[in-house]
Amino acid sequence: MQVTILGGGGFLGRKLAARFAADGAIGGKPITGLTLFDLNQPAPLDAPFPVRCLAGDVADTATLKAAIPPGTAIVIHLAAVVSAAAEADYDLGIRVNITGTQALIDACRALPAPPRVVFTSSVASFDGGQDAMVPDEGRQLPTNSYGAQKAIGELLLADATRRGFLDVVSIRLPTVMVRPGRPNRAASSFVSAVVREPLLGLPAQFPVPEDFRVWVCSPRRAVDWLAHAAGMDTAPLGRDRGINPPGISATIGEMLDALAAVAGPEARALAKRVPDAEVEAIVAGWPAAFAATRAPGLGFVRSESLEDLVRAFIADDLDATRRDRGMA
Amino acid sequence: MQVTILGGGGFLGRKLAARFAADGAIGGKPITGLTLFDLNQPAPLDAPFPVRCLAGDVADTATLKAAIPPGTAIVIHLAAVVSAAAEADYDLGIRVNITGTQALIDACRALPAPPRVVFTSSVASFDGGQDAMVPDEGRQLPTNSYGAQKAIGELLLADATRRGFLDVVSIRLPTVMVRPGRPNRAASSFVSAVVREPLLGLPAQFPVPEDFRVWVCSPRRAVDWLAHAAGMDTAPLGRDRGINPPGISATIGEMLDALAAVAGPEARALAKRVPDAEVEAIVAGWPAAFAATRAPGLGFVRSESLEDLVRAFIADDLDATRRDRGMA
Repeated sequence: MQVTILGGGGFLGRKLAARFAADGAIGGKPITGLTLFDLNQPAPLDAPFPVRCLAGDVADTATLKAAIPPGTAIVIHLAAVVSAAAEADYDLGIRVNITGTQALIDACRALPAPPRVVFTSSVASFDGGQDAMVPDEGRQLPTNSYGAQKAIGELLLADATRRGFLDVVSIRLPTVMVRPGRPNRAASSFVSAVVREPLLGLPAQFPVPEDFRVWVCSPRRAVDWLAHAAGMDTAPLGRDRGINPPGISATIGEMLDALAAVAGPEARALAKRVPDAEVEAIVAGWPAAFAATRAPGLGFVRSESLEDLVRAFIADDLDATRRDRGMA
Repeated sequence: MQVTILGGGGFLGRKLAARFAADGAIGGKPITGLTLFDLNQPAPLDAPFPVRCLAGDVADTATLKAAIPPGTAIVIHLAAVVSAAAEADYDLGIRVNITGTQALIDACRALPAPPRVVFTSSVASFDGGQDAMVPDEGRQLPTNSYGAQKAIGELLLADATRRGFLDVVSIRLPTVMVRPGRPNRAASSFVSAVVREPLLGLPAQFPVPEDFRVWVCSPRRAVDWLAHAAGMDTAPLGRDRGINPPGISATIGEMLDALAAVAGPEARALAKRVPDAEVEAIVAGWPAAFAATRAPGLGFVRSESLEDLVRAFIADDLDATRRDRGMA
């Protein structure tokens, strides 16, 4: 079976593609080909099956049809304009996050059989802030354009599922940490930076108090969840296709303590608070915790400890980050 | 101030326009002009202010900008592809119900000041069926494309409000009964037909059992709520711009009893059950009752009794319906 990753050149897309290449199969069915699609052409990937790397505009239906050829059984939809960027440019967010999802639906309708679609929705589609403990049936009342556009994507894809155009699993990803590379346009960029930058020997800034709580997960767990969603039986989901996976509710201080436990107090001392009203206004609305009672029973594995999460970054991504940033 | 009604040629649009013409003002501010916009050119209206009647495609931004000229302070957005039609033609529903709402937002952004927008959302954006008692903070998990598109419209307009492009109040209208005229493409068309057709001396069919419960309101109350939303102070709403107005939860049998009380048992005897699996599948998902605890405190008046609702149809719309159908 053919697999397509939209946003296949990004951080999670690359990790998921590598996972598929290592496994060679999804849900016991062999992968016969993989298409990596992104705004910029993704780098080649070593795999036991052919890999196509395509560049294009996710909001263009004809382009998406080429990226999702006949025989495609699984589409992973990671392509998105992230939170601070969607807040800064309303039209760009609408175009990529909504029109892009509509184009994906139209491409899926053109296939002979409805493919599994795994959609990365977000914690940012909920509100409630620091006091929240969002239940699985919690209402999405977003506090930012990115979150609104993700909630809209869920509604579009759930209705397309009901109509038989595709078969979606929407994973409301926590803030993924520790992201490799450099800070990006996500409002949550600081959550990774407070661990990553000190491990590189560099200072890091965070805009919120140390007791500010964030709902997070490791890249390893995000990849586990996406791969599981790609192959799972969706019958037990019924009409409710949104999954709140079992992340970790942790304060910035707890993350820094885990950093200190793994890399010493001098690493922790490199992270300092520098208030940023604009970023704080966005992240203040995001709920700090989810009940996530449904997902473990559906096979979504629980998060590891914060210290293991820091160690995983050192094992998986620290050297590559050093190389990418010319520090090797 | 200028006022525009999108869908101004339809049943509720005409009634609301007549109300504005009678009042001459909204929220104490005089109306200086009214634009009635619809797919087909609305009929002229007598009013103490100039009335423009325009025809066009609601999904075309340039057309909508002409319908929403500078000086517009209030836009009532009733333009929609209704439930059975949106289920039958997916692309048409997306175009009118989503792209049309995006075009409205773009037209509002072009105005010098953010206008009040009153959006008619729907009970069909919720699920739960016969056992439901939807709380004000209930989640929208639609069971049909129309409901999904209305929930998406709410999300788009709430985010546009947060960004300062406009100032929305979204009214999740119950099934409006008794509608004048003829049966239409709404799955709920039978709810009006069981009262209207017998009052015309004609037989009526309903596809569900007599104990099937529906959340309804009269056209008079729908107009009251829309007019109130047009002029109300929105500060108490906060970010939650969705209003579940205080309708009536009534069974088909209770509606027929009210019909019998007003027009005699021979009228009731004209309504008969004829099962229709397609319509039943759509309406079975709609919740039968709402708590509606927030709306009365915000000034949305409560519904009248079912008997008064039948009498209101006789007073307001029975003669016109006879004329429209060549029965006068």
